[in-house]
Amino acid sequence: MTQWENAIKSIITQQMEICARNEDVAVEQIIRSLKNGLAVIPANRLHTNLTLPSIIGKGFRVKVNANIGTSFGHADLKEELEKLKVAIETQADSVMDLSTWGDLREIRKEILKNSPIPVGSVPIYSASVKAFDSKKSVIDFTEEDFINMVLSHAEDGIDFMTIHAGITNRTLQRLRNGNRILKMVSRGGAIITGWMLKNGKENPFYEHFDEILDIAHDYDVTISLGDGMRPGSIIDATDPQQIEELLEMQELVERAWGKGVQVMIEGPGHVPLNEIEANVKLMKKIGKGAPIFLLGPLPTDRGVGYDHIVGAIGGALAGYFGCDFLCYVTPSEHVSLPDIEDVREGIVASRIAATVADVAKRSKKALELEKQMAVARVNFNWEKMFELAIDSRVALEKYSKRPYDDKGCSMCGPFCAIKVTEEFTLKGT
Amino acid sequence: MTQWENAIKSIITQQMEICARNEDVAVEQIIRSLKNGLAVIPANRLHTNLTLPSIIGKGFRVKVNANIGTSFGHADLKEELEKLKVAIETQADSVMDLSTWGDLREIRKEILKNSPIPVGSVPIYSASVKAFDSKKSVIDFTEEDFINMVLSHAEDGIDFMTIHAGITNRTLQRLRNGNRILKMVSRGGAIITGWMLKNGKENPFYEHFDEILDIAHDYDVTISLGDGMRPGSIIDATDPQQIEELLEMQELVERAWGKGVQVMIEGPGHVPLNEIEANVKLMKKIGKGAPIFLLGPLPTDRGVGYDHIVGAIGGALAGYFGCDFLCYVTPSEHVSLPDIEDVREGIVASRIAATVADVAKRSKKALELEKQMAVARVNFNWEKMFELAIDSRVALEKYSKRPYDDKGCSMCGPFCAIKVTEEFTLKGT
Repeated sequence: MTQWENAIKSIITQQMEICARNEDVAVEQIIRSLKNGLAVIPANRLHTNLTLPSIIGKGFRVKVNANIGTSFGHADLKEELEKLKVAIETQADSVMDLSTWGDLREIRKEILKNSPIPVGSVPIYSASVKAFDSKKSVIDFTEEDFINMVLSHAEDGIDFMTIHAGITNRTLQRLRNGNRILKMVSRGGAIITGWMLKNGKENPFYEHFDEILDIAHDYDVTISLGDGMRPGSIIDATDPQQIEELLEMQELVERAWGKGVQVMIEGPGHVPLNEIEANVKLMKKIGKGAPIFLLGPLPTDRGVGYDHIVGAIGGALAGYFGCDFLCYVTPSEHVSLPDIEDVREGIVASRIAATVADVAKRSKKALELEKQMAVARVNFNWEKMFELAIDSRVALEKYSKRPYDDKGCSMCGPFCAIKVTEEFTLKGT
Repeated sequence: MTQWENAIKSIITQQMEICARNEDVAVEQIIRSLKNGLAVIPANRLHTNLTLPSIIGKGFRVKVNANIGTSFGHADLKEELEKLKVAIETQADSVMDLSTWGDLREIRKEILKNSPIPVGSVPIYSASVKAFDSKKSVIDFTEEDFINMVLSHAEDGIDFMTIHAGITNRTLQRLRNGNRILKMVSRGGAIITGWMLKNGKENPFYEHFDEILDIAHDYDVTISLGDGMRPGSIIDATDPQQIEELLEMQELVERAWGKGVQVMIEGPGHVPLNEIEANVKLMKKIGKGAPIFLLGPLPTDRGVGYDHIVGAIGGALAGYFGCDFLCYVTPSEHVSLPDIEDVREGIVASRIAATVADVAKRSKKALELEKQMAVARVNFNWEKMFELAIDSRVALEKYSKRPYDDKGCSMCGPFCAIKVTEEFTLKGT
């Protein structure tokens, strides 16, 4: 039985218990949210070492995903496992293995074997890489290849999979009629669109969606409906092409629920700040409340080299308006395969965004931590401040850069407002 | 005549012309905005090398200020001038010299001599440092000391000054009645409050506000009404103590305008995301439309070591809702005096926030740059992408980390969506 089916029968799974404890909520709330599809617990029944599952959805802490994986000419398993280690250390809630180079299955299996957090993947990459490796073009694969890859990822223990089933002939009609600058920036989306046009067929992910759901059900894989038509520039945001794909997702969400499969929907990557609220609310409405997995979003395209900051701005606001799951963006986005330091910076930036969103949503736990930080500050309790910091190591490093031996720090020295208040102001009140 | 008085008489100054050119607007718009106090051009008549003045206010690009200056035990003029150089290179719109150590006047004069951008200061620091240097407590100075410091800063050519005149006996009443965790985190605010309580007198900045305005008028110094009661924690945000000080500012704004003095108001530093809109709108309303100068704001206190990212999240949203001028926050905020690299990172983060706000406000110029970036991307025009990046140097560095010799980059290699679209998708449409 899937987590959803257990919830329907009010059976409490081990994963539900862990989530309830981590979220500081009653397990009944977990069950209620799973039942009505407002939350998911990605947990493939074969990912046996998943000791840190997460519940993603309305009413729970905003979660953070980190993409790792190899790319063209660079497939170093050790480096990927090191990225995974950093992801766990910096408290990412999940990773996605987006590898497109090397022995994909070995990499995937090793990541799963070493990951106590949920692992996601994009099976179409495997089909595409297989074609490319056989000296064919990246779109030269069959419908069977698709389905086999989904099955193979499920068998390996993948907890959630991006399936670009929302690109249909209707969506392509919008692509033809549209006037985007950047037609497509989703790898999966571009590959599947190329395949559809070359073969003159409907999207095999859409055509065979029931088969995919059957596999997902057997292994309890959470389906993440990919946003192949997501805009790749501020100028292209919130256009008919993007929204058309979203509209297709409503049917897919209902079909997933109909088969007892957990499902979430993915959202646009490049969105100006003034359109984030509308995008998130529309996704929640059309998606019937299914959890939202958002890349970024990025509210400017000019922050190259700092897209983790751009993504944190968009992510904080998206999280506040109801986005449940932030896909991190690293400083190397758009220009380079991220290295280990990029992974760290990307996760911390996204965790800051998630924290900002949780605080803004008046999460009891998030506010309690903010209060503890304020109390630590007024008491010059540096140990506690570092402990409460989202990245304790870097907080301590920055403090230690210029040592200061009195109560405050080297920024204000004897003119520290908290010290002055303590010495002169409170006495007089 | 001040910029404001010139505007009233429809006289076009050189500074107005430069601003009109930089903002890509008609000089009439500059004049109109200055006239009704909705914008300011900080430009002390003695800061003769101010070749890059800025107009700050409604309808113009969101601006970024960088705080530099010495602190306890660390007064290296060369380092401060290097920070200034970095600020100019990374396109900060202004700097504030917040020095509290060393020969303050020499530092100030050297910064001004080398700064083509407006320079701000906080004269109360000078009075306080003078007291501290004479082995007295940081609040042991006279009312004359205050006024003399304002005059001295104006004579040196300071373009805008923070004056904490909004802390009055009424505000202190709120401080007494309140139950903040962190009573005060503004250095100037804490010092002046200590002084008021010790001397049992009204705030000398409030009492002598007309004298200060006369000095400001003579040199055309823009007054920035300091937020001494700004909350220092998320938990303390938007409380009566903070708002009481804001209420006092309305009278002060009107008195400044009555004397032909340009004025802006400063705002809270620590504000949860869900209260940023209300704060900015209340400040605009109570401040009668005077430009808003905001520190951060910071929507979580747990991002220690990454407060530039936290500040960018708050700043982008504040800018979108009408904040005109973002005071940067560096990664060392709360823990250490910023070094040169901190200054760079802080400015870039704030410029990203300002860009996000300008894009969200549908600024024609900002959208044009976004469009150019999208076009550069679809054409794999890397030179142009780096040129359009907010920090071109870092964008190029990140790209060069893992060279890729085909059109795309090492992130996606042959699976680059833009390449796939070009090769397979467009052909079929």
